[in-house]
Amino acid sequence: MDNTLKPQGTATLSVDARQDLTELENSMVNIIEIFHSYSGKNCKLKKGDLKELINSQLSTFVKIQDSQTLDVIFTDLDENHDQEIDFSEYAALIAMVTSACHKSFHED
Amino acid sequence: MDNTLKPQGTATLSVDARQDLTELENSMVNIIEIFHSYSGKNCKLKKGDLKELINSQLSTFVKIQDSQTLDVIFTDLDENHDQEIDFSEYAALIAMVTSACHKSFHED
Repeated sequence: MDNTLKPQGTATLSVDARQDLTELENSMVNIIEIFHSYSGKNCKLKKGDLKELINSQLSTFVKIQDSQTLDVIFTDLDENHDQEIDFSEYAALIAMVTSACHKSFHED
Repeated sequence: MDNTLKPQGTATLSVDARQDLTELENSMVNIIEIFHSYSGKNCKLKKGDLKELINSQLSTFVKIQDSQTLDVIFTDLDENHDQEIDFSEYAALIAMVTSACHKSFHED
């Protein structure tokens, strides 16, 4: 599937390029840009970065009550156990929270 | 993790409610709303719905060259083999394409 889904023609993130994207594609680029604003240059989130991202960007949907909650989220996401969250692991978080959010909308 | 990530206080999708959300949260709600605009009332995408969603909303990032390509994507996503894509399976598609897009940005 990797080859099938390889993005094509997405060389830039300029304002002009963003205008040519659909609403869904722009939402996906937002998700990438927000990750970059919290990750270091190595594109990884340490536990403190993840906490800041969740508290600043996901506070309506995810409540971190205490450090234990953060530990559970971090450990669950860190699939390769390198004590950092890479983009794929972050994308899995976004997918999980969005799915939980979708379920919640239908329950309300 | 389900309880930890259960969305709270997201009862409505009104314009007022959207204004209170962060950019990341609004991007996630966009992803949900776009799914709903292609799924039937049962919140499932049939193969034709998925094709229409990809061609209309993901055409910059995903190219469906032929029906075989669509078949591969659909079969890969349809984890429970019910011949329909539910929201979680769609969220997995979005995560995969966003991850591929992130990788592509770094390669350009």
